[in-house]
Amino acid sequence: MIRVAVIGYGYWGPNLIRNFTGTQGVDMAVCCDLKPESLTGAKARHPWLRVTTDYNEVLKDKTIDAVAIATPLRTHYQLAKQALEHDKHVLVEKPLAATSLEADSLVTLAAKRGLTLMVDHTFVYCGAVRKIKELVAKGDLGALYYYDSVRINLGLFQLDCNVIWDLACHDIAILAHLMEEEPVSVSANGVCHVGNGIENVAYLTLRFASGFIAHIHNNWLAPVKLRTILLGGERKMIVYDDMEPSEKVKVFDRGVNVVTKEDLHRALVSYRLGDMWAPRLDPTEALSLLCKDFVKCITYQERPISDGAMGLRVVKVLEAADLSMKQDGKGIMV
Amino acid sequence: MIRVAVIGYGYWGPNLIRNFTGTQGVDMAVCCDLKPESLTGAKARHPWLRVTTDYNEVLKDKTIDAVAIATPLRTHYQLAKQALEHDKHVLVEKPLAATSLEADSLVTLAAKRGLTLMVDHTFVYCGAVRKIKELVAKGDLGALYYYDSVRINLGLFQLDCNVIWDLACHDIAILAHLMEEEPVSVSANGVCHVGNGIENVAYLTLRFASGFIAHIHNNWLAPVKLRTILLGGERKMIVYDDMEPSEKVKVFDRGVNVVTKEDLHRALVSYRLGDMWAPRLDPTEALSLLCKDFVKCITYQERPISDGAMGLRVVKVLEAADLSMKQDGKGIMV
Amino acid sequence: MIRVAVIGYGYWGPNLIRNFTGTQGVDMAVCCDLKPESLTGAKARHPWLRVTTDYNEVLKDKTIDAVAIATPLRTHYQLAKQALEHDKHVLVEKPLAATSLEADSLVTLAAKRGLTLMVDHTFVYCGAVRKIKELVAKGDLGALYYYDSVRINLGLFQLDCNVIWDLACHDIAILAHLMEEEPVSVSANGVCHVGNGIENVAYLTLRFASGFIAHIHNNWLAPVKLRTILLGGERKMIVYDDMEPSEKVKVFDRGVNVVTKEDLHRALVSYRLGDMWAPRLDPTEALSLLCKDFVKCITYQERPISDGAMGLRVVKVLEAADLSMKQDGKGIMV
Amino acid sequence: MIRVAVIGYGYWGPNLIRNFTGTQGVDMAVCCDLKPESLTGAKARHPWLRVTTDYNEVLKDKTIDAVAIATPLRTHYQLAKQALEHDKHVLVEKPLAATSLEADSLVTLAAKRGLTLMVDHTFVYCGAVRKIKELVAKGDLGALYYYDSVRINLGLFQLDCNVIWDLACHDIAILAHLMEEEPVSVSANGVCHVGNGIENVAYLTLRFASGFIAHIHNNWLAPVKLRTILLGGERKMIVYDDMEPSEKVKVFDRGVNVVTKEDLHRALVSYRLGDMWAPRLDPTEALSLLCKDFVKCITYQERPISDGAMGLRVVKVLEAADLSMKQDGKGIMV
Repeated sequence: MIRVAVIGYGYWGPNLIRNFTGTQGVDMAVCCDLKPESLTGAKARHPWLRVTTDYNEVLKDKTIDAVAIATPLRTHYQLAKQALEHDKHVLVEKPLAATSLEADSLVTLAAKRGLTLMVDHTFVYCGAVRKIKELVAKGDLGALYYYDSVRINLGLFQLDCNVIWDLACHDIAILAHLMEEEPVSVSANGVCHVGNGIENVAYLTLRFASGFIAHIHNNWLAPVKLRTILLGGERKMIVYDDMEPSEKVKVFDRGVNVVTKEDLHRALVSYRLGDMWAPRLDPTEALSLLCKDFVKCITYQERPISDGAMGLRVVKVLEAADLSMKQDGKGIMV
Repeated sequence: MIRVAVIGYGYWGPNLIRNFTGTQGVDMAVCCDLKPESLTGAKARHPWLRVTTDYNEVLKDKTIDAVAIATPLRTHYQLAKQALEHDKHVLVEKPLAATSLEADSLVTLAAKRGLTLMVDHTFVYCGAVRKIKELVAKGDLGALYYYDSVRINLGLFQLDCNVIWDLACHDIAILAHLMEEEPVSVSANGVCHVGNGIENVAYLTLRFASGFIAHIHNNWLAPVKLRTILLGGERKMIVYDDMEPSEKVKVFDRGVNVVTKEDLHRALVSYRLGDMWAPRLDPTEALSLLCKDFVKCITYQERPISDGAMGLRVVKVLEAADLSMKQDGKGIMV
Repeated sequence: MIRVAVIGYGYWGPNLIRNFTGTQGVDMAVCCDLKPESLTGAKARHPWLRVTTDYNEVLKDKTIDAVAIATPLRTHYQLAKQALEHDKHVLVEKPLAATSLEADSLVTLAAKRGLTLMVDHTFVYCGAVRKIKELVAKGDLGALYYYDSVRINLGLFQLDCNVIWDLACHDIAILAHLMEEEPVSVSANGVCHVGNGIENVAYLTLRFASGFIAHIHNNWLAPVKLRTILLGGERKMIVYDDMEPSEKVKVFDRGVNVVTKEDLHRALVSYRLGDMWAPRLDPTEALSLLCKDFVKCITYQERPISDGAMGLRVVKVLEAADLSMKQDGKGIMV
Repeated sequence: MIRVAVIGYGYWGPNLIRNFTGTQGVDMAVCCDLKPESLTGAKARHPWLRVTTDYNEVLKDKTIDAVAIATPLRTHYQLAKQALEHDKHVLVEKPLAATSLEADSLVTLAAKRGLTLMVDHTFVYCGAVRKIKELVAKGDLGALYYYDSVRINLGLFQLDCNVIWDLACHDIAILAHLMEEEPVSVSANGVCHVGNGIENVAYLTLRFASGFIAHIHNNWLAPVKLRTILLGGERKMIVYDDMEPSEKVKVFDRGVNVVTKEDLHRALVSYRLGDMWAPRLDPTEALSLLCKDFVKCITYQERPISDGAMGLRVVKVLEAADLSMKQDGKGIMV
C-alpha cells in the first residue's frame, strides 16, 4: 500500500485526491494546504481525509510514501526537493520547475536516492495521445513531417507564468513522447496585451535535425476555444481535435508522392486522397491512468512515461522559448 | 470604353476574361498566351475573342488601353514593364513581382507615366474582408491585438514560389488593407518536405510597433483544407472562416478587462462573454468588383485599394520572410 | 425553511439533492430509496443526510414540507398521491404519470388541497429555452410557422417507456411553454427494432389550429448524438443546437415574403437573407432554477411554469402519440 | 452515335447539354425551348448547337435517336409520350410524371415499343449513394433498421409541385435503389405557410413489411441548408452529410446487442462503440455517369438503374403522400 499526501488543494488538487482515492494500492492519506479555508473545502468533500497546513508534518510522517505537489510553479522546486530529501516519491504538477537548473537538480536528487520522480503531464496518458503514439510507433504515418498545435481560448490568465508555460507545455511533453529525436532549436514570438507583463499570445517553433518541424499557437485572448493538433507524415496524416465530443482522432490516408521531374513547368508531385478513419479511443480518464502508473513505477522501480527527464526536457524548451521571445524570434539551440 | 487584353490563359486568365466581359465600360478585346493550345481553349469558350501568341502585337496595338497579366511570377516584371512603357495601364496577378527591386521599379515607372498599376489581391475586395475593414475602421474592435491566419490544404505545389509567396501573400495584403501601421519586423520558419527545394510548410510572424502581432500558418501538406482568420481587439474579436458556406464572419463581444492589481496572487483580469453576431456579407464575386475598380481608377485617375504601393509592401514582407527562413527564424526589419 | 425529501436515489435523485442543497430556504432533509445499497451511496456523498428505505416514515414526518419524486414512471402516481394526501407539496420527475387519468387525478387532488404540484420539465428552465421564450413573447419571430426537433443518440433504452415518453417529452413541454395555443391533433409513427417490444425509433407530428406544425424525431439507435431544434417564424428563425459548446441559440433574420401573384409561372415569393445573431445565454444550471422556483411557488402560493397542468398536457399528447402509432400514423385529436 | 435532343433550356437543361456534350458516343444535336430568349442564351454558350422552338421539328427528325426532357412537371407526360410514339428513347427529369396513371402509361408504351425510358434521378448515380449501395449490398450493415433524411433550406419555392415532389423525390428514388423491398404504407403531414396553397413544410413516413422505417423531412422555409441522411443497420450505421466538403459518408461501427432478458428491471441491451470510417468517394459528376448509362442502355438494350419502373414507384409514393396529407397523416397503402 502506497500512502500518498496531496500538497495544494486549489484547482488541480481535488482531481488528484479523487483519482488517487480510486487507485488500487493507494491509501490517500493527507491533504496539505497553507490556507485553512481550502482545507475546510477538502474536508467537506472527503470527510475521512486528514488535513494539515503544516508541510513539515507530512515530511516527518514516515508512513507517507509519496507526495503529489499541486501548488504554484515557483514553489515546485522547494517542495519537491524537501520531499525527496525525506525519502518520498514525488509527483509534480506540470511544468516540473520554474528553471531548468531546478528541474535538473530534482532529477539528479531523485536518481541519487533511488526515488520515483514523475511529472503530471496528463495529456501523455489520454486515449487520443496513446492511440497516436501507437500509430506513430507502428510506422503507419511513415516519416514524420510536422506537428502543429493550436491551444487558444479566452483566459485563464496565469499569474506566475506566461501562456507558453501554461499551454505549450502540453505539446512539448506530447512531442517528447511521440518523437524519437529531440528538438535542436526553438524560435518563439509572443506579446503581452492587457498589460500585466506576461505574454498572453505566443507562437513557438521547434526545429529537428531530420527536418521535422513543430509549431504551437497559444492565446489567452481568443474568442473561441480550440484544441487542434495536426500531425503530418509521409504516408498518413492525423487531425486530433480535442473539442469534438467523439471521433477526436482522425487518420487520413492522404499524401503527396514525388513524381519524376521531367520538365520544370510540369507538376512535380501527385496527390493521394484516400479513406479517413477515426479509431475508437479508450475513454478512461487520463489522470487515473497516470496515478496508476505512478504507483506501479514506485512499486516495481520502473520509469514512468512522464518521468523527471521528460519534465526537464520540457522546461529546457520553455526556457529557450522565453529567451527567443526576448530576441524577436531568434532561433535558440537546445 | 477601356479596351483590355488578358495575358496568360492558364488557371486565372479565364476568370479575368469572364469578369472583364461582365464589367461595364470594358471591351474585353484580346487574349494572349505563348501556347497555341491554351488559345484554342479560350476560343472555344469565347468564340468572339481575338487571340494571339505574340505579346508585341498587344503592345503595339494602340487601341488597347490596359493589360491584365496572369502569367508565372518570374515573368511579371518584364511583361508589366513593357506594357507600362507602351503606355498601357496594368493589372498584375499577385504577387506583383519576384523581387522588391522589380516591384519598386514598376511602381516608379507607373507613377512617372501617370498610369494605373494595380495588383490582383482579390481577397481585399471580397465581402468578408470589406465587412471586417468596415468594422475595424469604425473602431468597433477597439485597439487591435492580433491577426492569426491558417491557410492550409493538400497541394497545389507551385513550381516557381514557396508556400508563403503563394498563400501568406493574401494575408499580407489583407493586413496592409486593414491596418494603419506597417510591420517593423518579420520572422519566419519553413521546411521543405517531399524534396523539390521549395518550402511547403511555413510559419510567418509580423511584429508591429504598437504591439500588434500577425501570424500566418501555411501548409501544402495538410490533410484538411482550412482558411481561418482570427482578429482580436480590445472590445470585439472576429473569427472569419472562409470554408463555411454561410456566416463566414462572426463578431464576438468578448474580451478581457484589466482589474486593479490589489494582490499578486489574485486574478488581475475579468472576462466579458457577450453575444455573437454574424453580419450578412455582400455575395458579389470579389474579382468582378476588382475589375470594376480597375476601370474606375483608370477613368478617374484614382488609386485602387490594391495599388502598386500595396503590391510592393507585400513583396517586401515576402522577401524578408525568405531571409528569416534562411536564418532559423531571426527577426528581419522591414 | 422548506424541508424537502428526495424519493429515489437512482440517476436523477443525486442531481435533485445537490441542487436542493444549494437552494436558499431549503433544508434538504431526507433521502428515501427502496434499495439499501443506493442509500449507502447517498450517505457516502452526503454524510449529513438522513436516509431511509421506508416511504411511510417520510409521509408521517410532519416536519417534511415537500417531496421530490425521482422513481420509475409507473410509481409516480401512487407516490405523488400519497404525498399530497399527507399534505406535502410535490415535485415529480417528468413525465408526471403513466396515464392522463392518473395525471389528471393528481392535478385535481393538489388543487383541492391547495398544494403545489410541479413537474421536473428541466428544459423549460434552461438558458436557451428561456431566451427563445423571451424572443417569441416579444414577437420578434412574427407568426410562428413550425417547430422541428431532433433528439437522437445510441441508447439508453428505457425499460418502462418508449423513446417518445423518454425524449419527445422534453419538446412537448417546451412547446407548451412557448406556444399560446395547444395542439389539436397528434400523428406518430414508431418502430421497435432489437425486439423488446418498446418503440426505439419514432416520429411525432403535432398539428395546431393556426397552421403551426411541430415535429419531433426520436431515436435510441442513432450512431450520433443530435439535439437540434428549429423554430421558424414569419420574421425570424431560430436554430437551437444543444450539442454546441457555445452559441447554442442562433437567430436568423431570414424569411420569405409573398410577392403579388402576377403570373402563375413567375416566382411568387422573395427571400430575405439578413444577419445572424447568437445571444449570450444564462449559464445557470436549469435544475437549480427549477428548485428555486419550486420553493418560491410553495412559499408564495404561485404557479410554477411546469405545473401539474403542463404535466397533464404533456401526458395527454404522449398518450395520443401511442394511440396513433398503433394506427399507422392516424391523426388523433387531443 | 446516339443523336440527342434536349427539350427545355431552363434550370436543368444547360446541365444536360454540358454532360451529353462530354459523353462518348453522343452527338448533342438540338436544343428545343418554347421561349426564343432561352434559345438565345443556349446559342451564346454553345454556338455550334442547333436550336428550335418547334418540338414537332425534333419529333419528325428521324436522325434524332433520343430526347432528354427538362421541362415543367405538368408537361412531362405529353412530351415523353409523343417522343416514344416517334420511336425516340426518352430521359425525363424527375419526377417522371404528374400522376401515376401517366407514369404507368409511359412505362407501358416504352416497353411495347422496345425503347429506353429513363428518369433523371441523378442522386442514384452520385459517388456517395453508390458507395452506400455497395455497403448495403455486401451486407456490411446487417439487417436494415431505418432511413432518415433531412432536406431543408430557404426556397426555392416551386410553382407546380409541393416540397415533397421537389425534395422527397430524391430520397424515394434512393430508397428504391438501396432496398430490396418496397414500402407498404405512406403517412405524411404537411403545411402551407406563406399562402400559395402548396405545402412548403412536410414530413413523410414510409413503412415496410420487414419493420424498416423511412422518414423524410422537407422544408423550404428553413434558415439553414441541411442535406443529411442516416441509415441505421444491425451491424453498422451510416451518416451521409451532403453539405460536407469532404468525408460526406461516415460509417460507424456502432450498434445495440440484445442481452438475455433476465430481469424486467435490468438492462436488456448492450452498446457497441467502435471505429468510424469515411471511405473515399468517386468524385465524378453524377449526371455525367447517368448520361453515359442512358447511352449504354440504348446501345445494348439494357435497363438503367433509374428506369421507368423506378420512376413509376416514386410517383406512386408521392401520390400516396399527397393523399395522406389531406387526411392528417393517415397511413395510405401503396
